[in-house]
Amino acid sequence: MSRIVYVNGEFVPFEAATVSIMDRGFLFADGIYEVSAVLGGRLVDNEAHLARLDRSLGEIGIRNPHPTNEWVRLQTELVRRNELAEGLVYMQVTRGTYERDFAFPPAETPPTVVMFTQAKTVARNPVAERGAKVITVPDIRWKRRDIKSVALLAQVLAKQEAAKAGVSEAWMVEDGFVTEGSSSTAFIITGGKVVTRPLSTALLPGITRLAVMRLAEEAGLTIEERLFSVEEAFAAEEAFFTSASAFVMPVVEIDSCSLGDGAPGPLTKRLRALYLEMAGA
Amino acid sequence: MSRIVYVNGEFVPFEAATVSIMDRGFLFADGIYEVSAVLGGRLVDNEAHLARLDRSLGEIGIRNPHPTNEWVRLQTELVRRNELAEGLVYMQVTRGTYERDFAFPPAETPPTVVMFTQAKTVARNPVAERGAKVITVPDIRWKRRDIKSVALLAQVLAKQEAAKAGVSEAWMVEDGFVTEGSSSTAFIITGGKVVTRPLSTALLPGITRLAVMRLAEEAGLTIEERLFSVEEAFAAEEAFFTSASAFVMPVVEIDSCSLGDGAPGPLTKRLRALYLEMAGA
Repeated sequence: MSRIVYVNGEFVPFEAATVSIMDRGFLFADGIYEVSAVLGGRLVDNEAHLARLDRSLGEIGIRNPHPTNEWVRLQTELVRRNELAEGLVYMQVTRGTYERDFAFPPAETPPTVVMFTQAKTVARNPVAERGAKVITVPDIRWKRRDIKSVALLAQVLAKQEAAKAGVSEAWMVEDGFVTEGSSSTAFIITGGKVVTRPLSTALLPGITRLAVMRLAEEAGLTIEERLFSVEEAFAAEEAFFTSASAFVMPVVEIDSCSLGDGAPGPLTKRLRALYLEMAGA
Repeated sequence: MSRIVYVNGEFVPFEAATVSIMDRGFLFADGIYEVSAVLGGRLVDNEAHLARLDRSLGEIGIRNPHPTNEWVRLQTELVRRNELAEGLVYMQVTRGTYERDFAFPPAETPPTVVMFTQAKTVARNPVAERGAKVITVPDIRWKRRDIKSVALLAQVLAKQEAAKAGVSEAWMVEDGFVTEGSSSTAFIITGGKVVTRPLSTALLPGITRLAVMRLAEEAGLTIEERLFSVEEAFAAEEAFFTSASAFVMPVVEIDSCSLGDGAPGPLTKRLRALYLEMAGA
């Protein structure tokens, strides 16, 4: 079976999937993306991802090309055509193709829509068994990190730092406090409480973050939305990060500093199990 | 004559010029660009632009795919094929096409190279005759603005604010001081001195900025490289901005506040004339 992707109204073979060199996504990072996980062939927490897509598009004035049910139809069709059981669906919308000029093209310019799947082991991820290591890096991103735009160069450089250090993720630090991971939300557990940064323009409103906070609350855990420092993270009992494809990922080491006994913590494991259950794993 | 562009080793018709949806420029803004002006069929200050391209690529770890002489050969060929007398040559290099993942692809992944021309009146630009209006906007960009990356969403939003206000450019402001324009360097003339912000990671090392500073010095003007506030700009005798395609653009109004008598200032006009002379107009 050949890989099929979606580009502007058509399902096409992966090899033939292109956009114009004048696409504003390519020239200006003038676009938004979303990622929904797929588990057992079903999309996980997908409506929340589509709502955030709509919100991000609105923040930069790109018209959402599809109502929610049409998005779901396209995603479902893409999953079906690729016989995807486990992995993710990636969606990107840009301000379309138009002669290069910084200001917006005419309002009638159709947005570019690209979607593809990636097969990936998300539930039985071996890294989740042994726990992930993270490093910290300065957060050098722009000031509207609540918008899930494709202007991801800072995140790419952060993730590459992590890769070079042989670890899974880079937690970004601003004024001594952790903002978030390069593609995830950062959590620590300290004094038995689950701590994560409150939402603001400094970080992305994580969909998995929200789901995990709800599950933690239902499980009777106390959640504190507040800033936490790198030092507090070093001294935490447990830590983890969340994302659409990592779900709840235990962190066992931050900047070569082991947390607890160096194995995934019990509360983190419980939250991961609860999330997997919710996701229908 | 149909428009010809350059993509990865080939000169192709504009309509056929595409990149893969997996291009890291499209997915991650993981790329660098440059723009050189063309006047009388000749490239203006081009070696400096190619040197900055090389420097930007190095800062984010993308291999420069061509030595300078090969870049010049490709640019010259593109100008010739498009019979371009006046306008610009745009160049973009991305980290290439590879399955989507934040961290860098294998080092042997070939960078993507895209080049195209735009015909444009750069010398006898009517806006330069009457002077440009600018607005100020908050500078919300990332912290490595010295790198000329395609992660331009903040600049796009700033330029769109300018377009909405019916003006030519947006000057970005941080901590009360002007950093630079959304696609240009900002200058004011106050107390007879030419003032512009010193280079740092807060702004792009403008090629035209440097050329104009040299010309100003040769003309016996005093240059002060220092921060200047929005209030100081409002009260300036003259103002202008520089870029590869705007050259020296007189500013006659900032945030609806007229400068001097509301016409391009004498020193600015002189600097524009000197630049045009240098560029061979």
